Order: sequence, then structure tokens, then C-alpha cells
Amino acid sequence: MSRSINLAVIPGDGIGQEVVAQGLKVLNAVLPQDVKLETKEYDFGARRYHATGETLTDADLADLKKHDAILLGAIGDPSVPSGVLERGFLLKLRFAFDHHVNLRPSKLLPGVATPLAGQPEIDFVVVREGTEGPYTGNGGTIRQGTEHEVATEVSVNTAFGVERVVRDAFARAQARPRKKLALIHKNNVLAFAGHLWTNVFNKVAAEFPDVTTEYMHVDAATIYLVTQPERFDVIVTDNLFGDIITDLAAAVSGGIGVAASGNINPARAFPSMFEPVHGSAPDIAGQGKADPTATVLSVALLLRHLGYDAEAARVEEAVSTDLGARGTTVRSTDEIGDALAVRV
Amino acid sequence: MSRSINLAVIPGDGIGQEVVAQGLKVLNAVLPQDVKLETKEYDFGARRYHATGETLTDADLADLKKHDAILLGAIGDPSVPSGVLERGFLLKLRFAFDHHVNLRPSKLLPGVATPLAGQPEIDFVVVREGTEGPYTGNGGTIRQGTEHEVATEVSVNTAFGVERVVRDAFARAQARPRKKLALIHKNNVLAFAGHLWTNVFNKVAAEFPDVTTEYMHVDAATIYLVTQPERFDVIVTDNLFGDIITDLAAAVSGGIGVAASGNINPARAFPSMFEPVHGSAPDIAGQGKADPTATVLSVALLLRHLGYDAEAARVEEAVSTDLGARGTTVRSTDEIGDALAVRV
Ligand SMILES: CC(C)[C@H](C(=O)O)[C@@H](O)C(=O)O
Ligand SMILES: CC(C)[C@H](C(=O)O)[C@@H](O)C(=O)O
Repeated sequence: MSRSINLAVIPGDGIGQEVVAQGLKVLNAVLPQDVKLETKEYDFGARRYHATGETLTDADLADLKKHDAILLGAIGDPSVPSGVLERGFLLKLRFAFDHHVNLRPSKLLPGVATPLAGQPEIDFVVVREGTEGPYTGNGGTIRQGTEHEVATEVSVNTAFGVERVVRDAFARAQARPRKKLALIHKNNVLAFAGHLWTNVFNKVAAEFPDVTTEYMHVDAATIYLVTQPERFDVIVTDNLFGDIITDLAAAVSGGIGVAASGNINPARAFPSMFEPVHGSAPDIAGQGKADPTATVLSVALLLRHLGYDAEAARVEEAVSTDLGARGTTVRSTDEIGDALAVRV
Repeated sequence: MSRSINLAVIPGDGIGQEVVAQGLKVLNAVLPQDVKLETKEYDFGARRYHATGETLTDADLADLKKHDAILLGAIGDPSVPSGVLERGFLLKLRFAFDHHVNLRPSKLLPGVATPLAGQPEIDFVVVREGTEGPYTGNGGTIRQGTEHEVATEVSVNTAFGVERVVRDAFARAQARPRKKLALIHKNNVLAFAGHLWTNVFNKVAAEFPDVTTEYMHVDAATIYLVTQPERFDVIVTDNLFGDIITDLAAAVSGGIGVAASGNINPARAFPSMFEPVHGSAPDIAGQGKADPTATVLSVALLLRHLGYDAEAARVEEAVSTDLGARGTTVRSTDEIGDALAVRV
């Protein structure tokens, strides 16, 4: 394990700056003395876009590539047309750095409110494919703006792309106590892609005989996520279905205020990026109101990815204890960060 | 209004037969004496498929076309490979009869349990596009079964197809007290289709100045459906997003046991089809356990489509009263049907 971490920090827009500051605070507090943490801040997001028209240049990518990992706050602002920063920065980075494992854990922690009745036990991880599906930008438009316009979106799925993410999900399932993996797709309608996903899933399953598998259509999965969330352990799914069900998963397991994510290149050919699932929340930006918990939990994912398992566990433990003790006291972004930094 | 109804009845598989029988019972009970109800039963589904290899022939379509409407129980059985009946019957019929308005109301009725905490007021309608999007069967596979396989799915969206369903949704929103319409899409990522949907939506909105509109990404919509379902009035969305969110909507508003749907051709160029959202539930088939409520509510949609508004309201009223009075008594399929038939 390298005893230094060279981290790219992208605070981004809105509450991004505030939550990332707390993430770094906790990271500094949890790292052993001998680990040298170097950070470099980048100014991506709405401000840079307005000033220069740039979202993410080749030079930026070359620069970012030198780091061990990336911590991101949030990107997005109402002043920028919808899609520009999403496609020009977030998706561009996921594709450029081949972040094919989009990891999104959902755990209902003690003291956290869920919109679901009862207090279901929720503890699962979604492995969302990050570089294929309908996210490739494939497709087009003819006769735009006329009554004869036709617009297409092409979902592209490759055996190579599906197999590596399915394999990653099986390995994650095998490492968990319950060893369960669900494939979520819509193979009764999207038969070409569905056939590929299902076949690859079944093929790889043969190599993991101790993992219990099931298949579920995405529509049915949304029902189970609100009626029986406890049934899930690990889920593997495509880019778009993963986008949809992880927001739902975040909602049922305590809200996007505590939902963390990692955009991972497992082979470490490129730095992986860790970010809260929530957005930039411009309405509460700069007021010290934002909950940094999701960012801190993303730091835990980052630590685990870099091999600091014990430190990752300490961060998760600190969050869990802190949430359990929160009660109804309203604390500022900074106060929550301080409390977590003390606990680790 | 025609004083006769020529109805095609497709009981289908599993519990289909049982629930359709109750639907017809209630339909008979609610119709005025002078309305002549003629029904013809069709044997589509797993049995026919196993016996003849057919799912829905051209002759079947010509025959079905003669009716005023179609009432369907459920199609699907584990003995048939996934996708065969879905694509060979259900989707084939939706496309052949140009069922472009897939109408799915979600109303939390008194006495009905929701998995959500509290007792949110849920009363919205999803207008799902039914003949385009990723449901067209467009796409393909190369190098199938090899490590170089590529499978694509093409979402096809036309100005014609989008505009007619958006227009239908605006009209429905305008006719409701709250007059609100939300467009759900993912226009920040699926930019070609998203641009078309958003543009058409905004264009048609100008003709309905009294309807309040909003746009929401599909991932965010799943969050709101569990945290603030009361915010929705009418939703319009594409075929795949509609498939996903209507299952979630059914789950939060009392489960698929009470979720009705209509596959509608508004111009009545073809008969529309009405069906419960639930499937054939082979595990409980033939035991008199199935809840026919969703089928009975589908009969209400059928009545309204054919212009029998007062009768439709009486059916919905009967269901609402019955659900409120149900308590914990377990009743058979038949008993529930009898109770509803008496109440209308
Ligand atoms: C902002 C958007 C491009 C992104 C996605 O769709 O992947 C977001 O919703 C997410 O889930 O990270
Ligand atoms: C069975 C399947 C083809 C269908 C769909 O995806 O439309 C079903 O899920 C539905 O929602 O009616």
C-alpha cells in the first residue's frame, strides 16, 4: 500500500465547497500520521464554464490523471443549460477514466428517517455499469423542430463491458455475508441487450457457485425496493436502470443526504472518483446548512478503494454512531464535520 | 353514445380468468338495462401458445378489431420463455391497435395500506406513451455469444408520437381540479429524445395556459414518488420511464392489487384495451385468492372511455366504499366481486 495519497479535489458548485471541506477534514483526521496527503483543488463547474466556456479539456484530463483518486462535491447550476455540465463534465470524466463500476451502497443507518413505514433493514450495494447503455451519446435527430422530427437514443452494450461489471458485482457479493446478487434489467422487452446481460450473468454465475442469484425486471424492482428492501444484498444493472434505482434506493435508505458513490476503475488504470449522490443544492448553498455525511461516506469508499480498509471502517463507524446520536439537534455543516473528525 | 357494448374478453393466464369474471360481473351490474352487452371470449396466452405456437395472428387482430373495447386479465406463465408472450402478444397488440395513451391512475384509497409512512394523499394519473421509445424492438446484436458481442436497443421518438400523447396529457390535466402536469424524462443525458420531448411539451403548454407544468428527471421522480407523492397530479412520460414509474406508483398507492390501466387509442380507430397492472400470479391461480379490485377499476376506465361516465364513477365509488369497509376480513375473489356488484 502506498503511504501517500495524491488527491484531486473538485468542490464544484453550490454546496459542493462546503461538503468537500468536511470530507477533507475527516480524511485528514482518520489517516495515520505517516500517510502523506497531498491535495490539489480544481475549479470545474459553473463558474469555470461561464468564464471560459470550458467544462473539461484534454489538458484537464491529463492533469487529473496524475492523482490517486478524485473527491468531488457537486457539479451543476441552474445558470447553465441542462445537460451541459452533466455531459460535458460528469459523464465525460466517467467515460474518459473508464469508470465502469459505479458503486452505490444503500444502508439504513440508526437514527435515520426513511419514508417507508416500519423500520426495514436495508443494507445493499448497487453496482451500476458506468460506461455503456443509453449513456454513450449514441443516437441522433433528423428534421429537428419540425412535425416530422425523429430522435433516437441508442443503448450500446458489449460483452466486454457487461462481463467486467458483472464479474465485479459477483466478487462483491461473494465477499459479503449473505452472498446474494440480483441482476436488474428489462429483458422481456429490451431483448437484444437483455439477452446479452442475462447470458453473461449466467455464465459468470457458474464461477461463483456460492453466490445466490436472481433476476428481476426493473419495474418489479422498484416495487420490491419500497415493499421488501431487505431482500437485496448486491444488485448489478445497466447505466440507466442503475441511475433510476439508486436514486430510489437512496430515498428509501435515508435520503440523498447520506448516499455516497464511487465511480471506479477497479484496475486503477485511471483515478477513481468519489462523490455524494446529491446535487449542488443551490437553494441552500453558502448557508452552512448542507449535510456533509454523504461526502464523508464517499471518503470512506475512497479509502477502501486505496486499500485503507481499517480507516474506511472507522469513518463509517463514526458516521453511524453520529447519526444514532443526532436526535433533533440541528447542526451546521461544519459542526457535523467536526463531530465526525473527532469520532474517527 | 352507443347503447350496446361489444366487448372482447381475454382472461389469459393464471389468475386472469378469476379476476376477469368479477370484472364482468360488476360491468353487468352497473350497466343500465337498455345497454346491450355482448362479450366474446378469446383464448390468448400460454395455453394457446403451447398448443399452436401462436401468440396473436393477423386473423386474431382482424377479429379483435370488430369490438368496442377489450378487457384483459393477465398474460404470462413461467412455462413460456420470458419475452415471448410479452412481445408476441401484449406489445404486439399495443402497437397493432396504436394504443399510444397508456393510462395508469394512482390513487391511495381509504383503508388501503401503503408502504409509506404517514398516510400521504396520493391521487395522480400517469400518461405513459405506448408505441415508441425503447419498446419498438429496434436494435440488434452482432457476434452473439462471443466475447465481442455488441447488442443495441434503439429508442425511437417522433414529433408525431410525442405530441399526441403530450396533448392528451395536457387535456387530462386541464380537466382535473389541480391542473398540474409534470414531464418526466432524462433530458440531461438522453439529449436527442430529451430535446424532442421537452420542446414539444413546451410548445403544447402554450395552448394550455391554465395548466401548471414542471419538468423532472426520472431518477429524481422516483425520490418524489416516495417522499412527496402528493405533489403529482398528471404525469406524462415515455414508454420505458412510464413502465418503471407506474410500477413504483402502484406500489406506493396500495400495491398492484388495486392498480388499473388502459391501453387507449383516443380517436377510437381501434378498440382500446383495459387490464389490471398486476400479472398472472401463477402461484395463487385457481385458489379464489386473487383480488379482483384492479380489474374492476380497469372496467371503470373502460366505461369512461366508452362514454359511460356516470357508471364509471359508480364503479369507482363502490370500490372506494368497499375498500374502506374491508378491515381485516379475508374474502375470496368471488366474494369481493359480489360485494362490488351489489354496491354499484
Ligand atoms: C447528473 C447525471 C448525469 C447523473 C447520471 O445520470 O448518472 C446523476 O443523476 C447520477 O446519478 O450520478
Ligand atoms: C409485460 C411487459 C411487456 C409490460 C411492459 O413493460 O409494458 C408490463 O410491465 C406493463 O407495464 O404493462
